[in-house]
Amino acid sequence: MKKLCFLLLACSFFTLSAQQLESPSKQIQVEFSLDAKGTPTYSVTYKGKEVVKTSKMGLSLKEDTALVQGFSLVNKEETNVDETWNPVLGEQSTIRNHYNQASFHLLQKETNRKLDIVFKVYDEGVAFRYEFPSEDAVRYFVVSEENTEFNLTGDHNTFWIPGDFDSQEYVYSESKLSEIDNSKLDLNNGIALKSIESKYRVQSPLMMKSKDGLYLNIFEAAVVNYPVMHLDVNTENFELKSKLVPNAVGDMAYLRTPSVTPWRTIMVSDDARDIVASKMILNLNEPNKIEDVSWIKPMKYVGIWWEMHVGKSTWDFAGSQNAQNAASQELVPSGKHGATTENTKRYIDFAAKHGFDGVLVEGWNVGWEDWFGNWKEDVFDFVTPYPDFDLKEVSDYAKSKGVKMIMHHETSASVANYERHLDRAFNLMKEYGYPAVKSGYVGRIIPRGEFHDGQTMVNHFNYVAQRAADYKIMVNSHESVRPTGYSRTYPNYIAAEAARGNEFNAWSSGNDPKHETILPFTRLLGGPMDYTPGIFEIKMSVYDPEKTEQVHTTLAKQLALYVTMYSPLQMAADLPENYEKYLDAFQFIKDVPVDWQDSKYLEAEPGDYLSVARKDKNSESWFLGAITDENARKTEIKLDFLTPGKKYKATIYADGKNADWEKNPKSYAIKTRTVTSKTKLKLELAAGGGAAISIVPIN
Amino acid sequence: MKKLCFLLLACSFFTLSAQQLESPSKQIQVEFSLDAKGTPTYSVTYKGKEVVKTSKMGLSLKEDTALVQGFSLVNKEETNVDETWNPVLGEQSTIRNHYNQASFHLLQKETNRKLDIVFKVYDEGVAFRYEFPSEDAVRYFVVSEENTEFNLTGDHNTFWIPGDFDSQEYVYSESKLSEIDNSKLDLNNGIALKSIESKYRVQSPLMMKSKDGLYLNIFEAAVVNYPVMHLDVNTENFELKSKLVPNAVGDMAYLRTPSVTPWRTIMVSDDARDIVASKMILNLNEPNKIEDVSWIKPMKYVGIWWEMHVGKSTWDFAGSQNAQNAASQELVPSGKHGATTENTKRYIDFAAKHGFDGVLVEGWNVGWEDWFGNWKEDVFDFVTPYPDFDLKEVSDYAKSKGVKMIMHHETSASVANYERHLDRAFNLMKEYGYPAVKSGYVGRIIPRGEFHDGQTMVNHFNYVAQRAADYKIMVNSHESVRPTGYSRTYPNYIAAEAARGNEFNAWSSGNDPKHETILPFTRLLGGPMDYTPGIFEIKMSVYDPEKTEQVHTTLAKQLALYVTMYSPLQMAADLPENYEKYLDAFQFIKDVPVDWQDSKYLEAEPGDYLSVARKDKNSESWFLGAITDENARKTEIKLDFLTPGKKYKATIYADGKNADWEKNPKSYAIKTRTVTSKTKLKLELAAGGGAAISIVPIN
Repeated sequence: MKKLCFLLLACSFFTLSAQQLESPSKQIQVEFSLDAKGTPTYSVTYKGKEVVKTSKMGLSLKEDTALVQGFSLVNKEETNVDETWNPVLGEQSTIRNHYNQASFHLLQKETNRKLDIVFKVYDEGVAFRYEFPSEDAVRYFVVSEENTEFNLTGDHNTFWIPGDFDSQEYVYSESKLSEIDNSKLDLNNGIALKSIESKYRVQSPLMMKSKDGLYLNIFEAAVVNYPVMHLDVNTENFELKSKLVPNAVGDMAYLRTPSVTPWRTIMVSDDARDIVASKMILNLNEPNKIEDVSWIKPMKYVGIWWEMHVGKSTWDFAGSQNAQNAASQELVPSGKHGATTENTKRYIDFAAKHGFDGVLVEGWNVGWEDWFGNWKEDVFDFVTPYPDFDLKEVSDYAKSKGVKMIMHHETSASVANYERHLDRAFNLMKEYGYPAVKSGYVGRIIPRGEFHDGQTMVNHFNYVAQRAADYKIMVNSHESVRPTGYSRTYPNYIAAEAARGNEFNAWSSGNDPKHETILPFTRLLGGPMDYTPGIFEIKMSVYDPEKTEQVHTTLAKQLALYVTMYSPLQMAADLPENYEKYLDAFQFIKDVPVDWQDSKYLEAEPGDYLSVARKDKNSESWFLGAITDENARKTEIKLDFLTPGKKYKATIYADGKNADWEKNPKSYAIKTRTVTSKTKLKLELAAGGGAAISIVPIN
Repeated sequence: MKKLCFLLLACSFFTLSAQQLESPSKQIQVEFSLDAKGTPTYSVTYKGKEVVKTSKMGLSLKEDTALVQGFSLVNKEETNVDETWNPVLGEQSTIRNHYNQASFHLLQKETNRKLDIVFKVYDEGVAFRYEFPSEDAVRYFVVSEENTEFNLTGDHNTFWIPGDFDSQEYVYSESKLSEIDNSKLDLNNGIALKSIESKYRVQSPLMMKSKDGLYLNIFEAAVVNYPVMHLDVNTENFELKSKLVPNAVGDMAYLRTPSVTPWRTIMVSDDARDIVASKMILNLNEPNKIEDVSWIKPMKYVGIWWEMHVGKSTWDFAGSQNAQNAASQELVPSGKHGATTENTKRYIDFAAKHGFDGVLVEGWNVGWEDWFGNWKEDVFDFVTPYPDFDLKEVSDYAKSKGVKMIMHHETSASVANYERHLDRAFNLMKEYGYPAVKSGYVGRIIPRGEFHDGQTMVNHFNYVAQRAADYKIMVNSHESVRPTGYSRTYPNYIAAEAARGNEFNAWSSGNDPKHETILPFTRLLGGPMDYTPGIFEIKMSVYDPEKTEQVHTTLAKQLALYVTMYSPLQMAADLPENYEKYLDAFQFIKDVPVDWQDSKYLEAEPGDYLSVARKDKNSESWFLGAITDENARKTEIKLDFLTPGKKYKATIYADGKNADWEKNPKSYAIKTRTVTSKTKLKLELAAGGGAAISIVPIN
C-alpha cells in the first residue's frame, strides 16, 4: 500500500533558485526560496491563483542567533508517499495518506547550524514544519518566538475566536480579516477565565473564505512538546504571523536536537467539503503507539451532569459550592447533591434499558464545596467519594446491568495536584472497573504562571494520555488544549471538549445557531469533540420560569449533531426523565453509532450548513445529519452513496411544521420511507434546525 | 506532664498600653504594642538589655488592604505551657517544651479583618507568628510581602550567607552587620546555580554576637505552606526586615483562613551553648503525625558516592556526563561507571563486615549522561537501572548480608517530573526492600520560574515526606529547603543536606576550617544534616597528583563530626579501601551511635569551637566530639556528666603531634584511659583539628 520514491539532489551549497513542489493532483503549488538575506520564504498557489504570498519562515531563540536569515541550501530531498492506515476508531475505517514531500536542508553559515524545513503537499493543502537535525553536539535551545508568516492575498471572510491563551470556549465571530478586533467582543459570555493579550490575535484553526470563493484554513498538526500557535493578524495588509503561547517565565519552547516543531497547515479548496472531510491533520501525526488496542472502544453514554447545569442538583454535597461548608469538619448535606448512589442507579437503569454503554457521574468525590476560583493547589484527591456515593455499590450495580462507569476528574486546573494523584486515581478506576475518564481543567493553571495552551500543559495533556494508556484507560478531556491529531498516536485520547460545548446553552448567552456549522471547519479538524448533544428540553424555563437561557437549536438539530459532530464518545446529555417524554425522537440517539466505516460530506458551507452521511462501522446502515444556521433551509440530498440495487428503510427525524430554534424548538416530525441509491431526499430545515436520518437495509 | 493555665482578658476594644510577656526564667521580656497608627510592634530585652528595638509587624497582601496598620486590640489570651515529649529519633530522648504564651487578637476596623499575633517566650528566645483566624466567610488571600522587622541594637559580629533563593551551599562570611555585602563575595565557589538578587540580603538562621557578649540568632520554625524568609539588612542602622521568596509570578504565599505563618524566632543568651542546645525550633513544630513509627530507624551507611566526587568513577554509564551518548540509542559503557552490581556487592560486603546499616548507590539509574544544566523536564524515571546494575541481585545480596539498600533519586530539580514518577519510584523501593531514599535537587526548578525556597517547593518537600510516610520510607533530601523542625511532625524526614556539605571539599574551594563550628548555630537548628563526614584521605592529590583540593580538617576532626553534627542518618563517606588503611581510626565510626538519650553541649563559640558529649540511646556509653576552627586549641573537659562512682574506658581519637589540617592532616593518635565523672580531660586540637572520644562503662 506504500509507494515511495526518493530523489536526492546532492549538489551542496548550490544557490537556491525558487524550488517548486506540487500536490498529487497538481492543483496546489508551493514555492520555497531563500531571499537575498538567506531568509527562508514560501508561497502557495491553488489552481494557479496565489493564496499565500511570499511569507517568511524562521524562529527566534532565547540565547542563540535567531534562525531567520543567513541560510544557504545544502541539499534537498523529495519523496512521494501514498499509503493507507486504519484508525482504531474513526470517521472511516481506512485513511489514505497521500502527499508529495520536499525536505530542504539548510545551513546557517555564521553559526554552523543546521535547520531543515520540510513540506508535505496534499491535495487539500500544504503542511510544513521546522526540523532540528542531529548535529555533532547535542544542542539545547529555547525558542523565544516563531516567525512563520501566512501572508494572505485579500480581506477574506473569517470565522475567528480571540487569541486567548487559556480558553477556546468562544462563539465564532464572522467578519472580514480587516475587522478582527478582540476589544469589540462582548466578553460577558460565561467564560470564567480569559487571557487575551492583544486586540488582533486569533486562534487557529482559522477558517476563511475569499471573495472569489476559495476556502482557506490555517491550523497546525501534531503539537507535541511545543506550545499552541496563535495568529497575529495585520488587519491592513492581511499578513498573519505565528504567536506561540509563553510559559511562566516568558519562554515558548525548550527543545534539543534532534527534534521537530508541529506542522503548520494551510488547507485550500474551492469546495468547502474538502476542508471538513480532510484527514490531513490526523495524517501528519505519528502512527498509533499503543500495541494492544482491544480495550479502546467507542461509547455512547448518559450521566449525572446536565442536571447540575440546569440547577436541578449540585456537584457538591453540602450546598451550592459554598467554601464555608468545606471549611467545617463535617459536611452537612444540602439534599441537592446529584451524585448519590440512588440517583446513579437510576441512570444505570436508564442506560441499561436503552442500550447505552456508559454512565458518567460528576460530583462523586469530595472537594466541590471549595473547588474553583482561588488558585488553590490542593483541591480534589480523585479517590474519596462523598458519603452518599458508594463506589463499590455503584460499580457492582453497573456491572450487573452490563453498563460501564465513566470516571470524572475535575482538576480545577491544579495540574500539579492532579499529577501527584494520577496513579492513585487511575488505580482506583482499575479497582472498580471504570474504562474511561472525563477530565476537567477549569480555572487558572497550577504550576502558577502557566497557560492552558503552553508547552508545559501540552506536555501534561499528552502525558495523561500516555499514562492512561499504561492503565488501559480512555481519556476525554475538557478545558484542555484543542487537539491537533494526537488521537492517531494515542487513540485512547478518545475525545476532548476544547471548544464551546453545549453546556454554555444552559447558563450563558449560549452558542448561536451557526456555531455547530463552524466547529467542523475548526475545532473538529484536530480530533473528536465531546460536544454533549441531545438536549430535548431546549428552554431552561422548564426548570425555572425566570430562566431565559436556551439551547439555540431545534430538537431535531440536536439529533443531527450526533452525525455532524464526529466523536467516538457521545453523550445523550439530557435528563432521563426528559428522554422518557420523547421516546420516539430518542430512538435516533439509541440507534446512531459512534464509530464509522465511511463518511460522506454531502453539503458544507462554514457558518451556514452541513450535511454528512456516515456508514456504521459494523453494519450496512447509514446515518445522515443535516444542520443549518439561523436561516431555514431547503435542500435535496442524493443518496447515491447507498449500495446500488439495495433497498433501505429511512427514518427521517425532521423539524416539525413551524419549528424554529427560538419560537418553537421542540416541534419535530418522524417519517419513514423506503429509499435506494437513486433516491433524492428533500429536506426542510427550520431556522436553527436540522434533520437526522437512519437508513437501514431492508433484509 | 502538662501544666496549662488560662487567662482571658475579656475587655473588648480596649486601648492598648504596652503588653509585656516574659520567659519562664524571667530573663527575656517581650513588649507588644500598637503604635499611634495601629501598627503592631514588638521589642525584646534580655536581662534588662534591649536586644531588639521597637520593630514593626505586618503583611502586605496582593489584592486586599495591607495588614500593617489600623489595628485595635480586641482581647488577649495568656497561657503557660510546660510539657515534655519524646522524639522518635533525636539528640535526647525527652524534650521539654516550656514557654509563656500570649495571643493578641487584633481587628483592622477599616476592613473588619481579624489578625492574631501569638508570642511564645522560651528561656532561650522569643517566637511569634501571624495567625489568620476563622471568619464568618472563608477568606482567600495572597501575601505579597511580609513586613516583619528585627531592629537590632548594634553592629553585631555576624555569621552570614547570601540571601540566595536557590542555594544555601555557601561558606559563612563572618563580619559586622555593617559590612554585609553580597557583591564582595567570591562566587567561584562550586555552586552551580545562584539566585542572589540583592547586595544586602542574607539567609536565616542568622547567628550574631554583640559587642557585649550576647549571642543572638534569628530564624524561623515550622515553614509549612509558606515560603522561606530571608532578611534584608540595613547596614547603616542594623534594622533587618523579612523578605519572602517569591513564586514564578512574583507572589509569596497563597493562604486562606484559618491558617498561620511560620514562627519567627529570636534566640538570645550570654552563653552560646544555650543556642546550640536549644530545642525551640523543634518545639514550635506540630507533634508527630505518623502513628506507627516502628519503621523509622537511625542508620549509619556507606555508599557509592565519594568515589564519583573524587573522580575515581562516574555517575553515568556511558562517559563523563556526556549528552552525546545519551542521544544515541545504545549507551556504550565507559568502563568507569561506579554503580555496578559488582562494586555494590563490594560495598555491601564492607558494610556487613563493619556493622553498617545501609549502602547508598548513586548513579544506578539511567539518565546521568544528560541530567544537568539544560532545564530539561524529563530526566530520570527513577525505576530503570543501567544495564550493569541488577536491582534484584543487589537487593537479594544485601538482604543475605543483613544490610539495607538506600535508594537514590536525583531529580535534577525537575520536580514536576519527580512528582509524576513518585508513586512508581516508591513502589519500586518497596518491591526491593529499600527503607530510605536520598533525593537530590540540583539545578533550576521545574515548574519553571519557581525557586528552591518558595512556597511551591516548601510544599513539595513536605509532600514528599508525607507521601513517603504512606510507604514507610525515610527521606534524606539534598539541595532542598533548609529544615525548620518539620522532622518533629514527619520524623521519617530523617535528614537533609540544605547547607554546604563535605562534598565541596572534593572539587571546589571547599569548606573553611571554621565551617563546622558555625553549622550547629545555623543549619542544624532546624534539623539533622547529612553532612557526610568521615573522609580519611584528606587530600585529593592521592587520586591525581595535579589536584590541589582537600578537606579542610584533620582526620581526627572528621571523626569528631559524627558527634558535633547531629544526624540520625550518618554516612561514612570515604572509600572502603581508604578505611581499610586506617582501621584503628575507623573503629570510632563503627562505634559511634546516631541516636541519643542525652546531649551535653560543653563548650561552644560560633566560628571558633564546639565540644559536645552525647549518651547512646541504648546503652550507658558516651561519645564526645570536640572541634576547632583554623586555630589550634587546648582545652580541658570535665566529664561530670558521667554517672558518679562509675568507671569508664575512654578511647581518645586525637590529632597527632604536628597535625595540621593543611600541612599534616592525617596525623592522629589513639589513646585509652579509665575515666570517671571526676575526670578532667585535657585535649589538644590541631589547627582545623578535633578529637573524638568513646566512653564505655567498664562492667
